[in-house]
Amino acid sequence: MPQLTRSTRLGRARQIIDQHDLDALLVSRPAASRWLSGFVLQPMEAASSGYAGTLLVTQQNARLLADPRYTEQAALDCDPQWEIVRTDGPIEENLPRLLDGARRVGAQAATLTHASWMALTAALGSVELIPIDGELERLRRIKDSAEIEALERACALTDACFAYLCTWIEVGMTGRQVADEIGRWFGVNGAEGIAFDPLVLAGASAAKPHGRSDGVAFNLGDPLLIDFGCVVDGYHSDMTRTVFLGEPSDRQRDLYGYVRVAQRRAEEAALVGVPGTAVHAAALDALAAVGYGAAFTHGLGHGIGLEIHEQPLLKTSDEPLQAGMAFTLEPGIYLPGEIGIRIEDDYHLTDAGLRRLTGATREIIVI
Amino acid sequence: MPQLTRSTRLGRARQIIDQHDLDALLVSRPAASRWLSGFVLQPMEAASSGYAGTLLVTQQNARLLADPRYTEQAALDCDPQWEIVRTDGPIEENLPRLLDGARRVGAQAATLTHASWMALTAALGSVELIPIDGELERLRRIKDSAEIEALERACALTDACFAYLCTWIEVGMTGRQVADEIGRWFGVNGAEGIAFDPLVLAGASAAKPHGRSDGVAFNLGDPLLIDFGCVVDGYHSDMTRTVFLGEPSDRQRDLYGYVRVAQRRAEEAALVGVPGTAVHAAALDALAAVGYGAAFTHGLGHGIGLEIHEQPLLKTSDEPLQAGMAFTLEPGIYLPGEIGIRIEDDYHLTDAGLRRLTGATREIIVI
Repeated sequence: MPQLTRSTRLGRARQIIDQHDLDALLVSRPAASRWLSGFVLQPMEAASSGYAGTLLVTQQNARLLADPRYTEQAALDCDPQWEIVRTDGPIEENLPRLLDGARRVGAQAATLTHASWMALTAALGSVELIPIDGELERLRRIKDSAEIEALERACALTDACFAYLCTWIEVGMTGRQVADEIGRWFGVNGAEGIAFDPLVLAGASAAKPHGRSDGVAFNLGDPLLIDFGCVVDGYHSDMTRTVFLGEPSDRQRDLYGYVRVAQRRAEEAALVGVPGTAVHAAALDALAAVGYGAAFTHGLGHGIGLEIHEQPLLKTSDEPLQAGMAFTLEPGIYLPGEIGIRIEDDYHLTDAGLRRLTGATREIIVI
Repeated sequence: MPQLTRSTRLGRARQIIDQHDLDALLVSRPAASRWLSGFVLQPMEAASSGYAGTLLVTQQNARLLADPRYTEQAALDCDPQWEIVRTDGPIEENLPRLLDGARRVGAQAATLTHASWMALTAALGSVELIPIDGELERLRRIKDSAEIEALERACALTDACFAYLCTWIEVGMTGRQVADEIGRWFGVNGAEGIAFDPLVLAGASAAKPHGRSDGVAFNLGDPLLIDFGCVVDGYHSDMTRTVFLGEPSDRQRDLYGYVRVAQRRAEEAALVGVPGTAVHAAALDALAAVGYGAAFTHGLGHGIGLEIHEQPLLKTSDEPLQAGMAFTLEPGIYLPGEIGIRIEDDYHLTDAGLRRLTGATREIIVI
């Protein structure tokens, strides 16, 4: 998949306008805006940036709305085909004059708040807002070469961080301490940031697939689940390894092996044309065959890109996988009160097969 | 203001139910849920937590909705009067059975997405969803003693970080580097995290009130605007200082002095019973009197608490300020192409007057 120019991306957005008989497209989700225009909003800016970076696309125009705080940055970030429109006050006071007679406007109902949607509806009079969330999200499923390259760099940095952690972690540390060290390490080694607050869960606390890194000291004998990732050029890596603080028991080795086999079955199943549901089923079947189907309590994987969770969500996606998709495969076994084990890697699907982007070993690691 | 028990907080939410003739209140905003129930969702969890932590309050019941990932944590976090309701699947599939015949349900239209609102509306049949955003936000304006104590600790840590930065920063460093060091320092010195991505802006780039910390090296003679804060027990500090890398020019000293006077005028004006707009006007008038009214391009201050920007927003709030409020005062002068200067402190308003929570000097600092 060659690198798409942003003109090509804009063209794809305009196809949505055609296909849904729209006159314009209002793009509110920061990741969608960045993908189309190049405009970068930092995650921590989102809470206070209002609607800066909102795009208004028609067949004739490509406009980015920004209040005075963001106009200069937008001009630097955006490709030249984007016209930066300086706005003052709420979006509903600015949008009507920009619509050029549009009657049907596609908008992101799963991103805009209900209050914003209603304010826009009231201000736009007889103009109709049409939810087009899925259509816009689907555009970002297929990564081009520049996006894959950013993911590769994020994954390489994640591997390097994991190698460092394996030398650094010891009994007596806490999950919170390791999570903080992951943030520090990514910061000084060139990542833009962490992909999410790392999960570092020891012993039975790892049985909660989304528990939180806490201040309880690790004990000798604990399994340690580490789920983490970083951001490079806006693109997110997401990797999990379960390591052992001291020699694992035979039972722990068995459970780990079952998860490893489930991931391998998923890797074998993940081919172009196969639906996500079938890949999820391949991992689930492998775990069910050894009696742990019910212990796998979440979806097998999710797309990665400008957001940490994107389409496709494998467990529920019955559309055929396509070349250019990037996603995780992350089977797990969670036994409340006893242990949680997950192995997660990042992949790029190509016509030649599945390519793993994270490179850390899946063999048992004893720390 | 003594510490409110969470029962008292719940009672205040039930007053909203009475005042607006509702049967139930659906609380979706993480800060509002935390304030009422104690349930903590980390900022980075919010993107993937679905509606975990959503509260459903009636006169009889106080329930917290959580999927299996969060039930255990919710039971630990929440006060005992909260019943943890385990949910599976989307909220619209769970809410109908929990409504116990409620006909009018208050909900947060400025937090829920339009897509969620519509899905709930469809699932609830003849039940009416009523937007009650402002009412719930207003509850959190008045801080109790435990909240003020958390803010005090966040502000003390912010002062300590600033003192460290004054010894650490030197010519040749970059804004990005200082911003990262702020994050590291707060991490190892006991903060839960940073309140927002720090703004560290040198020279003319500080004229953009919401520019971004970048990789350009500081020069001797640069003014350096540092806007940063941390989180302690969920509560956010927010402080700005403009320091000078080498002796400031007379003009720079003059401009700094004008901003300092504007902040002092605002401090004098901020008393119980005075509307926020009047406090904003006091600072603006001080700047206008020396010819820089138009160079003050943003609001004077905002509430701080479980969110970094809360009510009251001083520039637009014509309600009288009340004892127990906590907010920033942050006048600035921004001259495009030349310089940006801002001084920002955090305050607690009491019947005895305004109390500054951040303690760093406002005198000119030369690094």
